[in-house]
Amino acid sequence: MHVLVIGAAGMVGVKLIARLCADGRLGTREITRLTRHDIVVAQPPPASSFAIETHASDLSQSGEAERLLAGRPDLIFHLAAIVSGEAEADFDKGYRINLDGTRLLFDAIRRMGGGYRPRLVFTSSIAVFGAPFPDQIGDEFFTTPLTSYGTQKAICELLLSDYSRRGFFDGVGLRFPTICVRPGKPNLAASGFFSGIIREPLAGQDAVLPVPDDVRHWHASPRAAVQFLTHAATLDTTGLGNRRNVTLPGISCTVGEQITALRKVAGEAAVRRIRREPNETIMKIVAGWPRNFSARRGVELGFRAEASFEEIIRVHIEDELGGRIAS
Amino acid sequence: MHVLVIGAAGMVGVKLIARLCADGRLGTREITRLTRHDIVVAQPPPASSFAIETHASDLSQSGEAERLLAGRPDLIFHLAAIVSGEAEADFDKGYRINLDGTRLLFDAIRRMGGGYRPRLVFTSSIAVFGAPFPDQIGDEFFTTPLTSYGTQKAICELLLSDYSRRGFFDGVGLRFPTICVRPGKPNLAASGFFSGIIREPLAGQDAVLPVPDDVRHWHASPRAAVQFLTHAATLDTTGLGNRRNVTLPGISCTVGEQITALRKVAGEAAVRRIRREPNETIMKIVAGWPRNFSARRGVELGFRAEASFEEIIRVHIEDELGGRIAS
Repeated sequence: MHVLVIGAAGMVGVKLIARLCADGRLGTREITRLTRHDIVVAQPPPASSFAIETHASDLSQSGEAERLLAGRPDLIFHLAAIVSGEAEADFDKGYRINLDGTRLLFDAIRRMGGGYRPRLVFTSSIAVFGAPFPDQIGDEFFTTPLTSYGTQKAICELLLSDYSRRGFFDGVGLRFPTICVRPGKPNLAASGFFSGIIREPLAGQDAVLPVPDDVRHWHASPRAAVQFLTHAATLDTTGLGNRRNVTLPGISCTVGEQITALRKVAGEAAVRRIRREPNETIMKIVAGWPRNFSARRGVELGFRAEASFEEIIRVHIEDELGGRIAS
Repeated sequence: MHVLVIGAAGMVGVKLIARLCADGRLGTREITRLTRHDIVVAQPPPASSFAIETHASDLSQSGEAERLLAGRPDLIFHLAAIVSGEAEADFDKGYRINLDGTRLLFDAIRRMGGGYRPRLVFTSSIAVFGAPFPDQIGDEFFTTPLTSYGTQKAICELLLSDYSRRGFFDGVGLRFPTICVRPGKPNLAASGFFSGIIREPLAGQDAVLPVPDDVRHWHASPRAAVQFLTHAATLDTTGLGNRRNVTLPGISCTVGEQITALRKVAGEAAVRRIRREPNETIMKIVAGWPRNFSARRGVELGFRAEASFEEIIRVHIEDELGGRIAS
């Protein structure tokens, strides 16, 4: 099977490709070819039993999607997007990359002809939801995003369902929790502190906490993210009906509960690395974000996240720190 | 105030313009100018105290929206769309007219500059919902359309909210019930029989009923449609928050209850004009349609529909038949 990964240079894309290269297969099907795409050149691919091609281009430019589809991939992961903050700061760029780029891809698939109907796995986000919320957001709650990013994701979800219903591809949309603990350097995303307050102390660095301890949010690990994607790639989609977009499982916990888990795993010294610096701007942004979901349907469909925030921390230590915590 | 009506030649557009011409004002504001737009040339406008211009063009062509906005209308009614059946039959045309045309309009407004921020009233539809449904669809139920038309409307709703949130215009999206009794000739829409079984008998003609008597649907009159639009034009939108799209009130009744109301208003002779001709295709389409809503929020916001289906029939007799029923 030929797999195309769009957004291959991103954190989740890199981890997904590492998994595919390690396994050599997806479910019962052997991977025979992999195409990586991103707007930037990706790092060299890991060792694999199959050929890997790499393309760097802007998917929102006319003709690029057609070029990527020339090899008629059987499975397409579409992970590419500009992030929430950038889509909010640059209105035109957000709609061009996150909406028009996706629609160009969808339409290019539709126009391929010859019975072409690949599986398409699309990463959406809990940003499709906007406050006010019930305590726990159910699987039939409406999408009223409070950001342009969330709007673009919600629109792509609708397109994904309609294009799947019409038989142009076999789509699955995944509403990712916030991925935590994100490896790498701190970034400027408003959500960055959720990872930072764990990642930095575990690495012997200080971290800034800009919100109160009672802020609740919805998390899953990068390892869970890869399971979400590979599971969606092999899922029997007849169970989805025309409701192609799935809220994924995660862990709902407060910042205080995150810190308690950190204490349990790494001790008081790690917790003392967290510096409280309240930031009104970040507090206001975070107040509009979802805090908790039932995600019953996602679990029934076989998607799996961690069982506790402590487990999320242990996954980070295993996968990113070689099992070692800075002392 | 300068009012622009896009979709001015359609049934609802014509009735809206007749109302605006009769009243000469909207709420406390005097109408000083009206621009009518449609893809076809509209019939001559009614008498009015203000100047009326008429444009016929394709809004989905580049530059057309800019031309319509040159007079900086204070209030824009965007009613234009191709109908469900046509959007399903012609995929490209549906997305071009119903999605791209709307987005071109929204973007043209956004690019006007100079503090321009008109009120924009957009007609969406209960087609944004798709089965399976609860008995009564609440105001926070998710949109999972089962047609490309419904998808296009749901996408435009999301754009309307985001563009309003960003301050580009002051939008209100209205999820219209099925408008019944539609005046004029029978058309080929799958929903046509809901009006046909009332309109034709009242005019002394035979009508075909293609579904069983227990099929339930959601109705409001053309007169209610005009109230929805004029109310949305003058509504204080601060009460909407970022949830700019409103499910409107209507009457939930079965075909059997429609027929009972017809009997009460026009007698057994009218009812005998209805010929039952079950049609599997139409039954299957109708099975995916919404049947009942709470519409609590719409009522709280001041939108008003009829109190019974009998009232819907009486409105038709008053507004379309000069108070007379064929004997």
